[in-house]
Amino acid sequence: MAIPVKRVAVIGAGVSGLMSVKSCLEAGLEPVCFEKNEQLGGVWQTQELDNLDGISGGTIYQCLMSNSSKEMMTVSDFPFPKEYPPYLTPEHLLTYYRNYAEHFNLDQHIRLSTEVMKVAPSADHEATGRWEVCSRPRCRSGTLDGPTASEIFDAVIVSTGLFNTAFVPSYPGQGEFRGQILHSNRFRSGEQFAGKTVLVVGSSHSAGDVAVDASRHASQVYLSMRDGAWVIGRFGPGGMPIDAYSNSRWKAKLPEVIRRLAARPMFEGRFDLDNLGLRCKRRLFEGYIMVNDEIHCRIICGALRCKPGIERFTRDGVVFEDGTRVDGLDVVVFATGYNLNFPFFEDNSIIADNFADLELYMHVWPARRTHPTLAAVGYVSTLGAQTPLFELQSRWVAQVFLGNARLPGIDERMEDVKRRKEAYFKKFGKHRIFFPPIPYCEELADRIGARPNFTRLLLTDPKLALRAFLGPAYPPFYRLNGPHPWAGARDAIINGWANTVNPTRTRVVERPSTGGALTVAMLIAVTVLIISLILVLN
Amino acid sequence: MAIPVKRVAVIGAGVSGLMSVKSCLEAGLEPVCFEKNEQLGGVWQTQELDNLDGISGGTIYQCLMSNSSKEMMTVSDFPFPKEYPPYLTPEHLLTYYRNYAEHFNLDQHIRLSTEVMKVAPSADHEATGRWEVCSRPRCRSGTLDGPTASEIFDAVIVSTGLFNTAFVPSYPGQGEFRGQILHSNRFRSGEQFAGKTVLVVGSSHSAGDVAVDASRHASQVYLSMRDGAWVIGRFGPGGMPIDAYSNSRWKAKLPEVIRRLAARPMFEGRFDLDNLGLRCKRRLFEGYIMVNDEIHCRIICGALRCKPGIERFTRDGVVFEDGTRVDGLDVVVFATGYNLNFPFFEDNSIIADNFADLELYMHVWPARRTHPTLAAVGYVSTLGAQTPLFELQSRWVAQVFLGNARLPGIDERMEDVKRRKEAYFKKFGKHRIFFPPIPYCEELADRIGARPNFTRLLLTDPKLALRAFLGPAYPPFYRLNGPHPWAGARDAIINGWANTVNPTRTRVVERPSTGGALTVAMLIAVTVLIISLILVLN
Repeated sequence: MAIPVKRVAVIGAGVSGLMSVKSCLEAGLEPVCFEKNEQLGGVWQTQELDNLDGISGGTIYQCLMSNSSKEMMTVSDFPFPKEYPPYLTPEHLLTYYRNYAEHFNLDQHIRLSTEVMKVAPSADHEATGRWEVCSRPRCRSGTLDGPTASEIFDAVIVSTGLFNTAFVPSYPGQGEFRGQILHSNRFRSGEQFAGKTVLVVGSSHSAGDVAVDASRHASQVYLSMRDGAWVIGRFGPGGMPIDAYSNSRWKAKLPEVIRRLAARPMFEGRFDLDNLGLRCKRRLFEGYIMVNDEIHCRIICGALRCKPGIERFTRDGVVFEDGTRVDGLDVVVFATGYNLNFPFFEDNSIIADNFADLELYMHVWPARRTHPTLAAVGYVSTLGAQTPLFELQSRWVAQVFLGNARLPGIDERMEDVKRRKEAYFKKFGKHRIFFPPIPYCEELADRIGARPNFTRLLLTDPKLALRAFLGPAYPPFYRLNGPHPWAGARDAIINGWANTVNPTRTRVVERPSTGGALTVAMLIAVTVLIISLILVLN
Repeated sequence: MAIPVKRVAVIGAGVSGLMSVKSCLEAGLEPVCFEKNEQLGGVWQTQELDNLDGISGGTIYQCLMSNSSKEMMTVSDFPFPKEYPPYLTPEHLLTYYRNYAEHFNLDQHIRLSTEVMKVAPSADHEATGRWEVCSRPRCRSGTLDGPTASEIFDAVIVSTGLFNTAFVPSYPGQGEFRGQILHSNRFRSGEQFAGKTVLVVGSSHSAGDVAVDASRHASQVYLSMRDGAWVIGRFGPGGMPIDAYSNSRWKAKLPEVIRRLAARPMFEGRFDLDNLGLRCKRRLFEGYIMVNDEIHCRIICGALRCKPGIERFTRDGVVFEDGTRVDGLDVVVFATGYNLNFPFFEDNSIIADNFADLELYMHVWPARRTHPTLAAVGYVSTLGAQTPLFELQSRWVAQVFLGNARLPGIDERMEDVKRRKEAYFKKFGKHRIFFPPIPYCEELADRIGARPNFTRLLLTDPKLALRAFLGPAYPPFYRLNGPHPWAGARDAIINGWANTVNPTRTRVVERPSTGGALTVAMLIAVTVLIISLILVLN
């Protein structure tokens, strides 16, 4: 097809960008990563509010905790420190990704404080597939500074992420509202709302986090959810992290109707969703999921009240869809998510900035392009850790750049795009990319030969095979063989559970005696139950 | 026996004191209530740290929420406002008890800022059973002011409560520790520990609350628990408040072995107690219970680490029983509970200030006294709301003062004391008064004829009878008949559940369709399960 790829521009040094740089390096490519911020780490950094230009950028808040457990979100060949707790704070994650960059010498390939201004087909693009990348340094204050540099790259990986441009909806009367309106990306801590009446809008993880944290300080917090979300805690049955519990290969093979039936008690069992106003209008797996362990506590003491969708704003409050209203509202926080944004493409058809028009083959390759020299890494969401998907995407991209893996023709790609898009739209009632992680990971791993042959594994290493099939689908599975395997992969899988639970086993005590074997107790119990029922009914 | 009782001194205007005043008034007695604080409401007030004289007084902190649900802790004839949430903040409770005092005209019988200095048998005590009560006004700063007044009362109700004098344990090396040591009654908010390394000691509700709140601000929090506690959330199965779920009359009739077996999944099912370091060494119902909905979240992100009991202090930290140590400790918070304290009795044998020597018949009457003119209201703990027990105690006391109810002889009383004391000691391995609420309430209600005859109720009002037997044991049950019934009692019981759940039903949406009847889905599911298992195992 085109000339062999060597120099690759990677746009963004968040998690997907770092993984892309690493995948290029291990494949012998020459990545140059452009990062507009002063530091790598993307969304895991705390950004000064003053540095946020307008509404752009997803950033963290004080109470943030990972929704995925550490062994499920690990980079496949770079384990988390053993002493890290099972769920991680932004501080843990930022340190981890910085160490990752250092360990694999990624830093020297990253140009910090450098913003990509333009990505356009090079003059010889039709023949070579090359791209022209124009960038400009940013000074400390965030303003652009210095001359624009123009360079030619053999290929480009776009990894600016899903949390790019804050989305603020617009309701009737919103312009006349006299209180403060802000997006959740400007939320840092509930303390900023001390004594205020606050409305949080949204059904996302952040909506829950912001509402909970605000409710500890505000005089009253309301949470407006139109469709609502299925709320779940971080713990599954048996004290397993919920993502580790849910995402195992044998469960992934079950049809969705079974998985839905099996999962419902985990969502419905903790508390009565209707009584707390947390009911989701859409079926499980067809609406949003909100990971939150504390929201019910804030509702039952009245500090947080759930409300339906907004109908309109008034001058000092809102009217909801059910006709109820809140007056005297001081602040409205839109935790309504982010839009895609690729301002560096002058031609919006290269990668569309909305999910309705987005046409990415396997969620990675702009489907209609002749040359496979432009890839998008990190533009999918899943029920569980996203970053292992991004890593596999970037590994596949590097193999395609090298010519070791090939893409099908445009027609086949477009068919894939159409099929997925229709399926998701049917499911969610809107254009959204959200799916169970395992089938997609297996598919990606297959493309680069990184999926171990299960039958062979069962014969040669049955312990590992059973762990990999019955246990949580830990990412190092895709480093057992294939390109760039990792010698520590087997241990990482075998020890994954121990690494999850050991850091918090800081107080080990003897279990109290159950006063004889439980079976004996059960026998006695049944007898006594019968006798006592007789007594009670007398 | 003695002369008829008319004037009653009530010591303390916390919840048990207010109930005692109300019970005296409705019985036609003349109570005079002495309250050393400026306001009524006892532990539900926020006290300025400066006003706490030394270590005395239990007071609230910012994040406090009731452990009992509102309909279970209601005064039997004074319902909570319908719009109050199912669990209450100190603000709700303080307002409620102030309204209670106002509604029943209790205020005019309460002398605020007046400390009882001495309670002693009157000169004619042997013949009359009367008591001399010496009191002194306190000025704003909390210091005593003005002359001591001495008055004669026909009877005295002591209701100074269980949270009287902070208990601070003593460990080897504690004196040399250079960090700060404080009792949890000086804790107001985790913010006071911002950036510090904090050790919280204890297995009580407060220990959990303090550790959780501190962990949101401190650089690291440790929670040292020797025996530990059985941690439970505020929600039981089906989204019922756990106390409403647990405390129903039919369940109270089951033997403990059954109740323990039935309750264990509620404690063990939420998360793995061993993995989080939250295991209790003692059997369920034989150790402490900690109500906490958030502690696991703080452990899984590493902000809070559980530790075993302290062995000794070092100059800048502690060594634990398992040999591990924490150095660089800034603060130690002892959430180690309270001691009894009756400083106004010069003769400590009147009511002992420790549970080992405490001899109260039915937990109310100093057992060895000839005259039934001294009662202690509010000195029991139970799994569930305590205040309904206090209210029944006070109603019984009033009836005894009136001569409508009689106490048995000293021998029989001492037998009751001995029997209970031995049973609790055997159970808890220490002197502690903690029992299931319903049998004790029924016993108290029997003494004053306030327990409805169940057979008659079943014939005349089967709906109410079934609710009262199968549903939560709401306090208004004891106002259906007997002395001073309340016309609203039946409605309060029937509407108890609605009043619990309605305040948070602020977003009512349609449930998503289950895509056909669940039974059909289940049939399909089983079929598909079998097929998929066959496929999976191929």
